Amino acid sequence: MSFKEFLYLDNTSSTKIDKEILKTYTYLTNRYFANASSLHTLGVEVKNLEIKAKNQVLDLLKVKNYRLIFTSGATEANNIAIKSIAIKNQHLGKHLITSKVEHDSVYNSFKFLADYLGFEVTYLNLNQDGTINLDELKNSLRPDTILVSIIGVNNEIGTIINHQKWCKLVKENSKALCHVDMVQALGKIDLDFLNVDLASFSAHKINGINGSGFLLIRDHLKIAPLISGGSQQDGFRGGTSNSPANIVLAKTVRLALEKQEENNAHLKILSDFLYKELKAISTISLNSIQNNSVYNIINFSVNNVQSEIILNALNNKNIYISAGSTCQDDLYEDSRVLKALNKSEKEQRSRIRIGLDASLTIKDLQYFIETLKEIINDYAI
Amino acid sequence: MSFKEFLYLDNTSSTKIDKEILKTYTYLTNRYFANASSLHTLGVEVKNLEIKAKNQVLDLLKVKNYRLIFTSGATEANNIAIKSIAIKNQHLGKHLITSKVEHDSVYNSFKFLADYLGFEVTYLNLNQDGTINLDELKNSLRPDTILVSIIGVNNEIGTIINHQKWCKLVKENSKALCHVDMVQALGKIDLDFLNVDLASFSAHKINGINGSGFLLIRDHLKIAPLISGGSQQDGFRGGTSNSPANIVLAKTVRLALEKQEENNAHLKILSDFLYKELKAISTISLNSIQNNSVYNIINFSVNNVQSEIILNALNNKNIYISAGSTCQDDLYEDSRVLKALNKSEKEQRSRIRIGLDASLTIKDLQYFIETLKEIINDYAI
Repeated sequence: MSFKEFLYLDNTSSTKIDKEILKTYTYLTNRYFANASSLHTLGVEVKNLEIKAKNQVLDLLKVKNYRLIFTSGATEANNIAIKSIAIKNQHLGKHLITSKVEHDSVYNSFKFLADYLGFEVTYLNLNQDGTINLDELKNSLRPDTILVSIIGVNNEIGTIINHQKWCKLVKENSKALCHVDMVQALGKIDLDFLNVDLASFSAHKINGINGSGFLLIRDHLKIAPLISGGSQQDGFRGGTSNSPANIVLAKTVRLALEKQEENNAHLKILSDFLYKELKAISTISLNSIQNNSVYNIINFSVNNVQSEIILNALNNKNIYISAGSTCQDDLYEDSRVLKALNKSEKEQRSRIRIGLDASLTIKDLQYFIETLKEIINDYAI
Repeated sequence: MSFKEFLYLDNTSSTKIDKEILKTYTYLTNRYFANASSLHTLGVEVKNLEIKAKNQVLDLLKVKNYRLIFTSGATEANNIAIKSIAIKNQHLGKHLITSKVEHDSVYNSFKFLADYLGFEVTYLNLNQDGTINLDELKNSLRPDTILVSIIGVNNEIGTIINHQKWCKLVKENSKALCHVDMVQALGKIDLDFLNVDLASFSAHKINGINGSGFLLIRDHLKIAPLISGGSQQDGFRGGTSNSPANIVLAKTVRLALEKQEENNAHLKILSDFLYKELKAISTISLNSIQNNSVYNIINFSVNNVQSEIILNALNNKNIYISAGSTCQDDLYEDSRVLKALNKSEKEQRSRIRIGLDASLTIKDLQYFIETLKEIINDYAI
């Protein structure tokens, strides 16, 4: 800690931008300022770089039969995947299925469709191991079900929900499309797109630029554009291209995938250390499921000490961390995810989420654990 | 031209980013990488800077009684203003009014509401001076009209449509809300928000960052969020804040307003020169209306030479320019704006739009005019 200004354990909320990515972005912004839809040399250069970046990402993810839509982030990508697909296909049926543990951008997109546009939504429960109950899913499918959306890696507790199982079941038993929010999965676990119709991604969760993300969509699918505009992105998403952000996305995804194995090896060491230490603290109960989670997210609760107190005390020691989903920044609100796992209200209100990054060391985490123990000692009732 | 790589006359499509703005943006991205919704010191610092920027913009535009929603650009802002307001207020009526000369992001947002959600849209004609026919507007207002949206400064021909006239008429004769697309107005003409309920803006049109814009909305108004997500921006627009872009927006708007008078003085000289020269070319007809337009947009047609030929020939001489709205990049498509002004098909297909910037000189434009004359001489039938 001596040379660091602070210890940042909030990488699930947002990561620090990679210096090389920022350098490339800055260069592109300065040099390629033309509108990618302009037909002169500079516009065409920008457009070509953007097409190249798009194809690079499709190559990297091995998804040649998908269309890539550049978005302002994963929240927009999730909104397009759900609202644009539902509105486009409403004549085929108005029933939708999702789970109780989705990110707010998914959860509230479904809420929007139910509240304003007369759609009916089924919210699936979770098994105690954090996976989807496949029998419940099968029983929920109806002839008018047009979309099922279930998160790939949970953003609060890090659970991996194997989408291959549920997508196969959906395809065998219905005509519904399958959407997976892969924001916390990219660069952390291997991705398989079999039976996946739509998948959402973010750049700033993998050391990329803010305000940048993308949606993959099977190339024969049509949507009702959430953001209407000109002929940009074949009419799927209007608005002047954020070309520098879109172009640098290829590098962002490439670096995340290239480093995945090495990062995971190190993250596993960090994760094993933390689980061991946290389990040894009697007042702590784990919310993450160690053998079915990504290494970089560890969620736990401290008996009888509210999240706010722990967060403030850690903050005073320059340790930056969050309670759970940063989108739900009201600590007195229940956590939908922990509720779905039948955690008590007390456990929900004392939740802490560690978001690791491969640049961290065991020494950093030793400092965190020591500080946490001191705080628990000071504040426990 | 000797020291310049190319002559860029496409500033209405996109402007070159100001070096100071890019420098600030890069600094912010590197330093303030935390999620603005995180509750630790770094998150709170980011959030506070964002709130400060928001208040600065509201101060600069003298609109204290408005909410500012940061968006990924003006296209998203226009989509929110139209779709989110219409969907939220659909129980009050499903009739909407706009004009035939709107930007694609407005035009196609109305089309979306008509095509997918059962709204009825009236498209107003233009007077020959490029203004709205107020009698037609008055006759179009109905008890179920919930929104009127008319562009402030036309993006193809630069016509100023005085929104004070039509907004007053709407307020006196209906309960409809008034939206003005002010993208091409900011930094070019003085803005008056009397009777305006919603107004949209872009950063990259005023030397700001790509993928950044904002919507002003009267602070008592509610919307159905186009982009659902967490509690960011009070639930009006979900998604992790693009904080560096949002924070630097204050500087972008400030610089645009500070330079407005000086820039306009210089742009008037450039504009007067161009009008004089263009009028002297017998095969050219003007589409812009000189005495009712901003100085930086001049649209004209060349008799019997198609846009594509002129654009290519200019491009070969390193002059970068567009035919009209860059969003409609198909040159064989009619221009809705020129059509509304009763321009012939021939005139529409030979349209050229000059987009000026205050950094240009008379010498630059002399080179442009000479080159244009040569091209007309070479290609005219």
